[in-house]
Amino acid sequence: MTTSTEHVQDIQKFCELIKDIDYGMFTTVDEDGSLHSYPMSMSGEIKSDATLWFFTYSDSHKVSEVEYHPQVNVSFVSPEQQRFISISGTSQLVQDRNKMRELWKPELQTWFPKGLDEADIALLKVNINQVNYWDSVSSFKPQKLVF
Amino acid sequence: MTTSTEHVQDIQKFCELIKDIDYGMFTTVDEDGSLHSYPMSMSGEIKSDATLWFFTYSDSHKVSEVEYHPQVNVSFVSPEQQRFISISGTSQLVQDRNKMRELWKPELQTWFPKGLDEADIALLKVNINQVNYWDSVSSFKPQKLVF
Repeated sequence: MTTSTEHVQDIQKFCELIKDIDYGMFTTVDEDGSLHSYPMSMSGEIKSDATLWFFTYSDSHKVSEVEYHPQVNVSFVSPEQQRFISISGTSQLVQDRNKMRELWKPELQTWFPKGLDEADIALLKVNINQVNYWDSVSSFKPQKLVF
Repeated sequence: MTTSTEHVQDIQKFCELIKDIDYGMFTTVDEDGSLHSYPMSMSGEIKSDATLWFFTYSDSHKVSEVEYHPQVNVSFVSPEQQRFISISGTSQLVQDRNKMRELWKPELQTWFPKGLDEADIALLKVNINQVNYWDSVSSFKPQKLVF
């Protein structure tokens, strides 16, 4: 159990780690046990509730995977800085129009041409359980942030 | 089922996709169902048997995860080229000294200071089942290579 101060410091550290990395690889488990990764752009800022948000279509395959196996991983990689971040969490589909309005950003138009009027547009929320990170490839052991 | 020519073309395409990417994120499923990712450096070339090889310590946590749930994902990301590769496969521990000698490269000394004399040094082999890749972030749908 982390104290409140440690929690705030861990959130700040986490924000620093991922701030320049535009896309994460969102990894899910399929019904046959196979693992798939998808590049995804995060929306919104990380707040004290330690959640990540991603826009999606509700009928996409990764949504059915998350419904089958809610535990996911999101990894962020910056090869130049030799920084590797592994986020373990649980994910769920959220179809809250107000939350979508809050999180919408113009860059998303590339994948959702009609914006929030797109049929089946929805959110995948990830509740972070644990973050492991390496900021040098010379170490085997990751550093940990617990949320 | 792919034909032999398609298979060779898919292997060649795959080699092109990952050739400049030094580290993959190797994602495993733990006994509690949680997913963890680890940065790993691939050893050896991709041949027609479509396997990836990584050096590891046999007592590392990811090895116990692979023994529990052999299906894994390895993702390779090149943010500059907006290239994202998801490899779905199955993994197993291999403790073959001849194979280790064949695959050893001097850069590995960073993690294995005593080289092949390191206690518990071993290999994780990944048999590739499917590769999905995006070479532009503007597309939702990946392209597929089937091995």
